[in-house]
Amino acid sequence: MKRPGEFELIERFTRSFTQGGGIRVGIGDDAAVLRPPPGQDLVATVDAVVEGVHFTSRFTPEEIGWKALAVNLSDLAAMGARPLWALVALATPPSADPARLARIGRGIASCARRHALSVVGGNVTAARQLSLTVTVLGAVAKGRALLRSGGRPGDLLVVSGTLGDAALGLLPGAAPGPSGRQRRPRPRLSLGRGAVGIARAAIDLSDGLLQDLGHLCAASGVGARVEVDRLPLSPAYRTATRGSRAPFEGALSGGEDYELLLAVPRSRIELLRGAARAARTRVTVVGALEERPGVRVVRGGRTIHPGREGHDHLRAVRVLGPGRGRA
Amino acid sequence: MKRPGEFELIERFTRSFTQGGGIRVGIGDDAAVLRPPPGQDLVATVDAVVEGVHFTSRFTPEEIGWKALAVNLSDLAAMGARPLWALVALATPPSADPARLARIGRGIASCARRHALSVVGGNVTAARQLSLTVTVLGAVAKGRALLRSGGRPGDLLVVSGTLGDAALGLLPGAAPGPSGRQRRPRPRLSLGRGAVGIARAAIDLSDGLLQDLGHLCAASGVGARVEVDRLPLSPAYRTATRGSRAPFEGALSGGEDYELLLAVPRSRIELLRGAARAARTRVTVVGALEERPGVRVVRGGRTIHPGREGHDHLRAVRVLGPGRGRA
Repeated sequence: MKRPGEFELIERFTRSFTQGGGIRVGIGDDAAVLRPPPGQDLVATVDAVVEGVHFTSRFTPEEIGWKALAVNLSDLAAMGARPLWALVALATPPSADPARLARIGRGIASCARRHALSVVGGNVTAARQLSLTVTVLGAVAKGRALLRSGGRPGDLLVVSGTLGDAALGLLPGAAPGPSGRQRRPRPRLSLGRGAVGIARAAIDLSDGLLQDLGHLCAASGVGARVEVDRLPLSPAYRTATRGSRAPFEGALSGGEDYELLLAVPRSRIELLRGAARAARTRVTVVGALEERPGVRVVRGGRTIHPGREGHDHLRAVRVLGPGRGRA
Repeated sequence: MKRPGEFELIERFTRSFTQGGGIRVGIGDDAAVLRPPPGQDLVATVDAVVEGVHFTSRFTPEEIGWKALAVNLSDLAAMGARPLWALVALATPPSADPARLARIGRGIASCARRHALSVVGGNVTAARQLSLTVTVLGAVAKGRALLRSGGRPGDLLVVSGTLGDAALGLLPGAAPGPSGRQRRPRPRLSLGRGAVGIARAAIDLSDGLLQDLGHLCAASGVGARVEVDRLPLSPAYRTATRGSRAPFEGALSGGEDYELLLAVPRSRIELLRGAARAARTRVTVVGALEERPGVRVVRGGRTIHPGREGHDHLRAVRVLGPGRGRA
């Protein structure tokens, strides 16, 4: 945060960052000094968005900033945590337009305000490609974090929102290409916090339902069954996939939905529905965990075999083009 | 941490990371779950190292990993904090040699072991240029963190180690080009912790003494006087600059020394010397804070005007070449 020649850039970039509670020292010293809420666990995660991989020229600068923070908040949501603070590292070509960087900063600040957290640290460095690496810190009641590993056979599988819209670029009013969902993900923080003490396991859906369900199953030592006829699909998704040979592929394997997948004991499913209502978030039961290992996709009682299994960011950088991000 | 196609890479990259105390959930869930030490402040900082800017092909992969973590630990040292945990985000070309990435991971793990902290989270993403963005979390007794803003006129200015060796590539046995100091910085964590309650202000020297002293002065609302004849210079530095027209430039303005600059009340200077002995770290008084704003460089009682004022990483990326990093 203190390299000559970068000062103006840093100032411009951080000008829009607000400061909140629990912060003894924020941006401007060698490090931030913070007071975590006593008696709670600290939850920490890091994620990066890279130009040409996670965002393209179709994104406004504000959307880049929003997304960089929001994808991290989706991870906190999956832990049932409340966000507190973020640290933001910007890598930028020296030739970048300072006004664009300031607008990216405003996008971060806007997402931070929306979710009541503060940016407490930052770093700016030169690089050939624009990227943002965000670390988010949050809090959850001691020992109550939602883990991937808590699922048991018989638990119902619940997903929030609708699936596949991001991959298909289908949100209402979205232009072709990356959808509003992809550009401005809405982390399910209220639902995640409401699910603490109700759900037994959780994961966020960043790489597609099948892929992420596979992780939850592996961590929990169980298998699962997904019923495609129960998948929550938006009207736009249904219209776009009518007549398709693989109508469920986007919903099963599309990346960047940033919804939550929860494993909920049958006895607590009404509690979970209540928590979802309080969070004003749609939830849908799409299957159940089973003892038998592996993930089975079922339609009309018969197992089917959908195509590719997830969204590969490392592959994406190689095949990047106008069609990227669409199933 | 969970993208398909990246799994093997992530596994390989994180295999060498150890886990330590206070960690309820480490690498492998949506986020880490941590137990900060009760009654202490949390200290957090983020920094990035980028190929061609902060490291070159002269660095071994282990040195890249070591440096990525060490530059952050230097910031913690300047706060008087004890390191606890780190989160590591790797951006890499998809074509990168997995064995090289594993060696970078081992360099991080080696630095983490040396300083008794654990890597609790990570992320791998595709990018055109290799970079590592590291967030470090540490702890310090409540309200006791060393800040830049605590300096008062009359405080003595103390630096650790010797200055300018990194910029001149001069550490014993170092080949021409980036020195051992630059490739394998040794964060002054013991000295920083020992200075808590003794020093009134601190900053780490990453951008050169004059530049970083300027920040300390600005934050403390004071000026300073540096006596060049007191600067701690290594024998190698003295030999290399013999006959130079600007013999102090490297020591005053060279970047990447990762030493500490402390402002210490005169009445506590013997306490500070004791803390330095306990930390087995050389310390030298190089000047004092003054009421009059601005930083004055003094030789034989006369103010002199050395050349450039610091090390500019953003400029460095443009002028990068074999001569980069040398004064």
